[in-house]
Order: sequence, then C-alpha cells, then structure tokens
Amino acid sequence: MHPPIRPQLTWLSRASRLGLHQRNVSNLPLTINQLFSRQKPEAHSNEPVTVHGWIKSVRKQKRFAFAEIRDGTTSKSLQAVLTADSARQLSNGMSVALQGSVVYTPSRPQPMELNVMEVKVLGDCDPETYPIQKQSLSVPYLREQVHLRPRTDSMATILRLRDKVARYFHEFYEGQDFLHVHPPIITGNDCEGGGDVFRALPSSSALPTASSCDSHPQLATQRTEFFGKPSYLTVSSQLHLEALASALSRVYTISPTFRAEASQTNRHLSEFYMLEAEMCFTQDLNSVMDVVEASIKHVLRRLAGPTGMLDELKDLHRSQGDGTSSSLPEETQWWDCIEKPWPRMTYTEAIRTLSTPTSPVQWGEGLSSEQEKELARRAGGPIFITDYPTSLKPFYMRSNPPSDSHGPTVACFDLLVPSVAELVGGSVREERLAELEASMKAHGLPAEELNWYLDLRRYGSVPHGGFGVGFERFVSWISGVDNVRECVAFPRWAGRMAG
Amino acid sequence: MHPPIRPQLTWLSRASRLGLHQRNVSNLPLTINQLFSRQKPEAHSNEPVTVHGWIKSVRKQKRFAFAEIRDGTTSKSLQAVLTADSARQLSNGMSVALQGSVVYTPSRPQPMELNVMEVKVLGDCDPETYPIQKQSLSVPYLREQVHLRPRTDSMATILRLRDKVARYFHEFYEGQDFLHVHPPIITGNDCEGGGDVFRALPSSSALPTASSCDSHPQLATQRTEFFGKPSYLTVSSQLHLEALASALSRVYTISPTFRAEASQTNRHLSEFYMLEAEMCFTQDLNSVMDVVEASIKHVLRRLAGPTGMLDELKDLHRSQGDGTSSSLPEETQWWDCIEKPWPRMTYTEAIRTLSTPTSPVQWGEGLSSEQEKELARRAGGPIFITDYPTSLKPFYMRSNPPSDSHGPTVACFDLLVPSVAELVGGSVREERLAELEASMKAHGLPAEELNWYLDLRRYGSVPHGGFGVGFERFVSWISGVDNVRECVAFPRWAGRMAG
Repeated sequence: MHPPIRPQLTWLSRASRLGLHQRNVSNLPLTINQLFSRQKPEAHSNEPVTVHGWIKSVRKQKRFAFAEIRDGTTSKSLQAVLTADSARQLSNGMSVALQGSVVYTPSRPQPMELNVMEVKVLGDCDPETYPIQKQSLSVPYLREQVHLRPRTDSMATILRLRDKVARYFHEFYEGQDFLHVHPPIITGNDCEGGGDVFRALPSSSALPTASSCDSHPQLATQRTEFFGKPSYLTVSSQLHLEALASALSRVYTISPTFRAEASQTNRHLSEFYMLEAEMCFTQDLNSVMDVVEASIKHVLRRLAGPTGMLDELKDLHRSQGDGTSSSLPEETQWWDCIEKPWPRMTYTEAIRTLSTPTSPVQWGEGLSSEQEKELARRAGGPIFITDYPTSLKPFYMRSNPPSDSHGPTVACFDLLVPSVAELVGGSVREERLAELEASMKAHGLPAEELNWYLDLRRYGSVPHGGFGVGFERFVSWISGVDNVRECVAFPRWAGRMAG
Repeated sequence: MHPPIRPQLTWLSRASRLGLHQRNVSNLPLTINQLFSRQKPEAHSNEPVTVHGWIKSVRKQKRFAFAEIRDGTTSKSLQAVLTADSARQLSNGMSVALQGSVVYTPSRPQPMELNVMEVKVLGDCDPETYPIQKQSLSVPYLREQVHLRPRTDSMATILRLRDKVARYFHEFYEGQDFLHVHPPIITGNDCEGGGDVFRALPSSSALPTASSCDSHPQLATQRTEFFGKPSYLTVSSQLHLEALASALSRVYTISPTFRAEASQTNRHLSEFYMLEAEMCFTQDLNSVMDVVEASIKHVLRRLAGPTGMLDELKDLHRSQGDGTSSSLPEETQWWDCIEKPWPRMTYTEAIRTLSTPTSPVQWGEGLSSEQEKELARRAGGPIFITDYPTSLKPFYMRSNPPSDSHGPTVACFDLLVPSVAELVGGSVREERLAELEASMKAHGLPAEELNWYLDLRRYGSVPHGGFGVGFERFVSWISGVDNVRECVAFPRWAGRMAG
C-alpha cells in the first residue's frame, strides 16, 4: 500500500557507502572483535598482528604458557600462546600488547589463537590488591567497584547489550520515519504533580545563608532560581515530545529521566533511561500498541541475528541462572515472543481474571506489581492491559466515551512482562482543549503553568499518542538480570552513588 | 591490513533484513516524506491516499484553491488542489486529513500534487491569535514560543539536521568498533573543580527549614544529601568514559552536560549535548585527532548524500544569510572541508602566527575566541591547535616530555572552525599513576575524592585518549545558524527557560 522508498534509499546508500567507514581510522589498532571476524586469509595467515588487551587469566606450564586476552569488544577471549619465559612476568588484570602470528584452529571452540613473538606490558596490576579477582564476586561487592565492574564478563555483556538495544531501536524508528529528538533535561514543571523530583540549583548559591533563610524564606528561594523560576530534572519527556510531534509528526528519544524516590526495589533507580515516542494522526489505542509491539519485536529479532548477542545472553543467563529470573533468554520463548501476537486485555477484564471468590479485586484499585506479573505469567509472555480507570492515571490521557461499565476510563495501556511487570506505559493523549482543561482542573493542576501545553490544543491540534519504555527494565527483561542496578554501568539510587 | 569483516556483516544483515522495517507498522498513516519518496507506480497512480498535516498556506481562487501541506517529515510541502467550496473553511495552522489522488508532475519543482476529494479538519486554528504567522518572525519572539517554534521552516530543518547528525555519528563509531554507552548524569564530583555546576537536590527537602539552618548549617546540608554525599549534574562524562574504556577499549556517548554559567554569548547554553569518545591503546595525539577528523568528515559526507540534507541547509542558509554566518553550507567549501586534510599546528606556532610587532601575544596566555576564529579563518577551514601550556589545561592531560621551549605542555588539542571557534577539545590522558597524582596535587585536587579514577592507573593502565564535540556548536557550524539557542528545540540559559 505504501511503498517505503525513503527508508530503502537510506539503507541502500549505507551499504553502497561502506567505503567510508569499513576500515579502522589510521593509527587505531586492531580490536579482538575485528580479529575474530576475519575470514582465514590464505595469503595473510602468517602476517604478524599486534593485539592489545587485558589478561583475563594465565596458565603457565613447563615450556609454554596460555593467556586469555580480552579487550571488551567481544565476549570471546583470544588465546595467546607464549613461551614460559616470556609469560613469567604476566598476571591477571595487566594490560599488554602482544605481537604474533594468527593460527587458525577451526576445530576448537575459538577458531584462532595467537602465537606470540613479542610481549609488551603496558600497565602492571598487583594481583594481591586487584579488586576484580578471578573467583566470582558478590553483587554488593561489585556495586562498590562500579569503576572496575565493566571488566567482569556479566557487566561487559550488559554494556554490549545496551549498545545493541539502543542501535536497533534507532534503526526501527528511523525506518518508520520518526525523528530522533533531544527534549530538555531541566524543565520548569514537575509534570505529573508528584513530589519525587530533583531540583537543579546552581552550586554556588545552592544553599541560602542562615541569615537570609532566617528572616525571609521566600527571598532565599528566589536567590537560587538560576533560570528565573523553579527548575527540575525531568521525570518524563512526554509533554515536550508532544510539542515536537505537533510540528514533526513522529518523534522519539532515548533520554535520561530522574525520580527522587526512596524506593529500594530491584526495579527502581533514581536516574534511568527511557525510550519515549510520540506520534500524530493515530487512529486509536491499537495503533500505539502496534508500534510498541513492532519495535520491541524488531529489537528481539535483531539481537537473535548474526551479531551473536542472543548466544551471549544465554551464556550470561546460565551464569546468573537461579530459576527465578526471566526466561526470555531461552531460545524457544524468545522466538515465541517474536512470532506470536501479544494479547490485549482491558483493565476490567484483568480485574475479573485476577479476582477469586476468596480474594476479590475491586474495580478502581491499582494493580500491584505481583498482580501484573501474574497476568503476564498467565499470558505466557508480554500482555497489554488497556483502558484503566481515569482516577489511576495522569491528566493528559484521553477520556474514553462513557459506557455502562464501572466508571470512567482513559485510552491507555501498560505492557506487562513476566519478570519485570510494567515495561511500557502509553496512551492516546487528550487532544480536545475543553476536555484537557477539565481534566487538569480535576487533577488540581493550575492551567497557567501548562499554558504552553494547552496551546498545542488551541492551534492545529491532532489526535496523537505515545509511550515510554523503561530502558533498564527492558535490559533486565531480555537479559534475565533481575536487578536494574546491574543493568546500568553507574547506578544511582537513594543513599548510593558510587563512581 | 585489517579486513573489516564485522562492520560489513552488520551492514549486510541490515540490508538483507529490510523486510523487518521497510513498511509502516499497520495503522500508522503515510507521511509526506514517504509519499514524496515514491516512484511513480503506474498501476497505483489513481489509487486514493490520505495525507495528514498542517496547512502552511492557502491560496483561494475563483473555482479552485491550492493549499501547502506540511507534516515536518520533510522540508518539502505537498500541494493540495481543492475546490473553492471545500477550501472555504481552511486557514493557516489548521490540521487536516485530505483524501485524494496523486498526480505526478515531474516538470514542476514538486514532482507530485494531491487532487483532493475529501477534506477533514482535525484541529482548528484561529488565524487571529495563532502565534506562528506567515510573515517572518523575530528570533527573540520565537524564543518565547519554543513550544510552537518547531513549526517554522528553520527550526524544523535544525531538528531534522540534529537527527541526521546523531545518526551519522552513531554509524561512524559503530563502524569503528566503539560501544555506545550511557555515563551517569548525576555525579559525585564536579570534575574540573570549577564552580559553575548545578547541584541535584530532592525537591521535598531541597531547602532546609529556617530553624535547622539557623542553628546547624552543617546538619541542613546533610539532610539534603539524597545520595549520601553532594551530587552534581555532569559537566563532562570523560572520567566515567575512561572507566568504561578501561574495560571495553572504545566507547562514546552523545549525552547532556550542564554548566551553571551566567554567560550570555551565542556559543553557550546551560544545558547542551556533547559527543564524547574515549579509546584505549592510542599511539599518540595524532591518532586521537585522526578519529575526530574522520568522524566529522563522515558526517559531512553523509549529509551531502541522497537524503538531501545539504540542499535543505543551503536553503536555510540563504534564508538566514547575512554574510557573517558560517560559510560551510556553500557547496565548494563543504567538499573542500571533506577532501583536504586539516592542518595541525602547535600552540607555540599559533602564538607566533598571531603575534605582531605592535600586539605581541605572550606564551602561556589562553587564546581568545576571536584569536581562535582568526586561526581558522587563515587556515580556510578547521584547524587543530595542539600542545597547550600545562597551566591552561585540566589535570588529566598527559605531560609532554620536557623540551627547550617556553614551558611545560600537555598532549592535547582544540579543533577550531571559522564561525564557532572551539568545536572539539581532546587529549591523550595521563595514564601514569605517579604523574597523575602529581598533576592532581598541582591542581589542588584531593586524591581521596578521585581515588576510583586513580584505580584505573593502578590496575592494568593503558595509553588512551579522547575528546568531546559540542553538539550544538557542531550544528551551528554546519547550518550557518550562528546562535546555539537556535540550534536546539528547548534552549536553557541563565535567566531563561521557556517551555
């Protein structure tokens, strides 16, 4: 129906322009990932190469030694074969440059090894004090060592995964004609009226002096307003994305968001990334859910592709596996999740499903994360729950037409997955001025603060919708790493900020 | 020398997987960009399509009317041909859904128009009060209307440009085996010891009560430490990128950074994006500059490619053109910049170049932005200035070996361009523990605060380097839009935060 000429041109031009970026910039050394990706070149097989990396382990024998070398660009390590003499100085954690010849060993697990001719130690590493020892280290210990934690196999896998997930999301949205935008981090409103926000204050005048706050607390507040009014760290880019979509039709971002919550669960961080998208001219809630489902399926399909990320995740899952974590890295469920349509169920049906004669669930109550997980478990995978009661949701969601059901609802959804519960939240936005003003009033939001947002409904308003995907929760779900603190390099939560 | 197998596989698999993302997700309507990208399909030429967008202008004649429709996905507008009767209700800024048949008009500037059969107004727009009028609007006025400003041609072009620039940078770094990472926004150190940082404080306890700060100012401070210690918004991700590179070899980010500067120049924002990269196993400063030069040339080359972005920039430049803005959108200079190597000059040579008998420049003085622009003007394009005096640069840059020149220098560079002055800053990092500790002492930085950073030199330290590109300055440079406040959707600077 709609020949997709532009995205096609983009991909073709990329392929045809390979010459621009297919080889290392001069002076950048070969990575281990690039070395492993080589086909066996008959003519070159004895050409010496120099490999840089860190020593993961050394096994010293009488005449020879075998060192496992990693540089983080792939999950695989390169086996280096050295003379016992040249390996004497080597220990775990050291950085080295090894010159040698590549020997192809297709019958072994690693299809090549390096016969080392020259060893150069770049940086020493005292094996007595090195915090990243070979034996497995506890999660709390590693949280104290976040600056060295990326050297562990599991954190390195998570960081490679984050890179891939972001790239594949970008790829999907570019293909669907969405523009990648940068909404502001510092905002003038706390969006949903909650108290769990951070303020941004200039350091030099961050705290009022005792004398000023003694006599004029109001005056002290004004002194600190760098932007002329209170400024907060964003909790969601949605309102700004709506302004951008009102001009560009389809926009998205992968951007940091902040919550000053004291929450200590395995699903909450004070600083986390969200993928948020907003699109105009939507038909209904289903079209918003279609984009969510297609984008996530695209990422899962690409991770299962030739980059080997799914295999890496399965390895990680095995090493983490305690039976309670996500089952997604099991390949059958992975493909199920890609190939089957995801069920969509209204909140009212969900309540009916969860209710039992002995423990009834009241219409109008929020779902607990245990109830959410239960719904996803029964569905055997992701499930959309739609049309929640108006009272449970923020002011900007579009009111559904009155029905003879229990009470007013809005055109919204949560996407629930078995291990993580809520992964995505989205809605059709209230695009009618009068209804939006009424909703703001009902939520106790003063219209003057969001007058700019109301302008979007005054001038060429359009039906539109959008959603937000918790990036760390997504990584947690697909990796089977249950705690979001292990799904980001430098986690921040109440009371803790290492590194 | 290094067969680039992995990047190649990535691109090939993208091309071969076109089926995954080549068509709109069901229910997403056709964009104007997709419509223009269509080849003339003989069989479909009379098939009706529905186009959604905003009315840019309407020209009403006796029997017919012509409306310019935009949806922001391309700089081109679609001409819609309507009956006078159906156009009566239409005015600028309205949103509409138009059903009609596409007529191919290859001889005209726009190769197709829409013969409208059915008009549906989605959102009204009062022409009397609509802030985005057809006549050209002043820059200060539009800064008051940031929520509607993306509807102007110039801001829409800038936002499409930002999207492309980010994508092409990602493409380059992916091809060079760099991992895209997310360093923290909230950090525990103010990095370079400057005072111009924002603090992040939880809203509810952001300001101590009068009584507590009256008697115990210290206590008040502690009450506000959500993370258990002072927390700031990052001014640069570099130190964290170094930790990540020490495990993953090559990393980069395109991430927000913050400065609480009162500066009101056309090159400064309080919130801006930086592309920062860090790579291990570098040989010398040249290898770091090689990556900068290759990455920027890649972006320029891609913008000149089939997406038509260079043409769009030339249009924008003409509409902005006052003779003083960047000359880059002129095509000859654009290609010069891509094809010629960029000169590299030491700070000492630069001082000599700038000095005249009547106004000598002292060795050891910083360069003013006018002097920087002068160097770039003389070079006729980008120029690297290297090896600045140690006293002018931060603590983490690598000391050069002593020479018989004027004084100690560090292995660093600034990339200067004619209109913007400093666009990129980078260096080889001090990887030697003793030298780094001495440098921190000389800069008055207490070692205990950056003990984690020193660990990177204790355990498997490697020679490495990196740089930061100011994203808004880059956009300013290549677009010829001189003020960075017009290079980002929602600018924030001292005293101002609209939207």
